[in-house]
Amino acid sequence: MKRSPETELLRANAAFYDAFASQDMEAMDELWARGLPVVCIHPGWPPLFGRDEVMDSWRAILLGENAPHIECEQPQPAAFGESGFVVCIERIEGDPLVATNTFALQNGVWQLVHHHGGPMNVETAPEPTDRTLN
Amino acid sequence: MKRSPETELLRANAAFYDAFASQDMEAMDELWARGLPVVCIHPGWPPLFGRDEVMDSWRAILLGENAPHIECEQPQPAAFGESGFVVCIERIEGDPLVATNTFALQNGVWQLVHHHGGPMNVETAPEPTDRTLN
Repeated sequence: MKRSPETELLRANAAFYDAFASQDMEAMDELWARGLPVVCIHPGWPPLFGRDEVMDSWRAILLGENAPHIECEQPQPAAFGESGFVVCIERIEGDPLVATNTFALQNGVWQLVHHHGGPMNVETAPEPTDRTLN
Repeated sequence: MKRSPETELLRANAAFYDAFASQDMEAMDELWARGLPVVCIHPGWPPLFGRDEVMDSWRAILLGENAPHIECEQPQPAAFGESGFVVCIERIEGDPLVATNTFALQNGVWQLVHHHGGPMNVETAPEPTDRTLN
């Protein structure tokens, strides 16, 4: 049975956080697209452009001495043909952040092309309720 | 002459900041997609899901007493078929923020489906150089 694009996006998003949480740089590298525009915005950082710069940043984060513990909550997918994104709450050492992870379909595989993470004010953190995007 | 998707994305992104800067709620409303998933993450806010909630937030921001003065710098487009995004630096009252604006093609028009804005540490603000995304 063919899975919906939204289901595939959620699986790709989960794979990203699995690689992040397990500090698996090889898996992280495989998740990011090759031959497409690639951008990454870590919380508070300026945007990083291009695959080399982006993967260097992940190497520094995942293989550093203080690799953060991270969990993904409330992922919400949105698909638009050959591209789509997942918005989710990240918990890093308990503090909430909000992230957008954008994927593009390459040879039938949803590959990361953009990660944008930023702080979220704790007092406005959303309750875990069902939501509709339309 | 047909314009490239990247050029169209830059035009749509500029129209978004024009509507923002001129507090033109009607133009802002026209820029956002209808009948597609819509999300918006204002700096520090939790994500807002769905067109009604997103437009309510823009109404509060644009028509409020303290509507911020905003400029967009260094916009970088990335197109993926029927969707694409622009990453840019926003200056609000001089302070730099970083934003991702995601668009989807509807009836030949690039419409906003997601805005994600967040703070950027001033000391790491990028120099205005040419960049490549690949």
